[in-house]
Amino acid sequence: MQVEALSQAEREDALDGLPDWDYEDGRDAITRTFTFDDFNQAFGFMTQVALLAEKANHHPEWSNVYNRVEILLTTHDAGGLSSRDVEMAQAIDALVE
Amino acid sequence: MQVEALSQAEREDALDGLPDWDYEDGRDAITRTFTFDDFNQAFGFMTQVALLAEKANHHPEWSNVYNRVEILLTTHDAGGLSSRDVEMAQAIDALVE
Repeated sequence: MQVEALSQAEREDALDGLPDWDYEDGRDAITRTFTFDDFNQAFGFMTQVALLAEKANHHPEWSNVYNRVEILLTTHDAGGLSSRDVEMAQAIDALVE
Repeated sequence: MQVEALSQAEREDALDGLPDWDYEDGRDAITRTFTFDDFNQAFGFMTQVALLAEKANHHPEWSNVYNRVEILLTTHDAGGLSSRDVEMAQAIDALVE
């Protein structure tokens, strides 16, 4: 199934609905940094995200340093932000709420 | 237990023993990129590394994009590369041999 990049209006709506995520212009991507108490908690969160990502077949670009996890979402096949990123961001937010 | 950064001679010996790792001068760190068949394999490897790291209480700086995992090792407490990084690199190498 082909996924299309969001239109400008859709992108603005999506970002309004994801107040904890930053828009990264150069990549047409969204990013969020999560901070935990320690590595154990951070990697536990990463494991939950990995299961979401594998189930959705939509994988983040992400990095971890001890208790911090940085996640970037974009849709390579669409050449930018798509509805799949918005859905993944919502699912990730739900993990930490 | 205080860990000291490696001396120049120790650093050279260590790097000779870790041919798959690159030395990153600006950080006094070592890095290696691992490529797998897919995300599932890449994250499985990350889980193994996470368990090693937690057991050793020595954690990597790392990132993942789909089937690729980049790992950087340095010892913040020592202000650079220490024996703990060498031991962790050897343990990580053993996972993929």
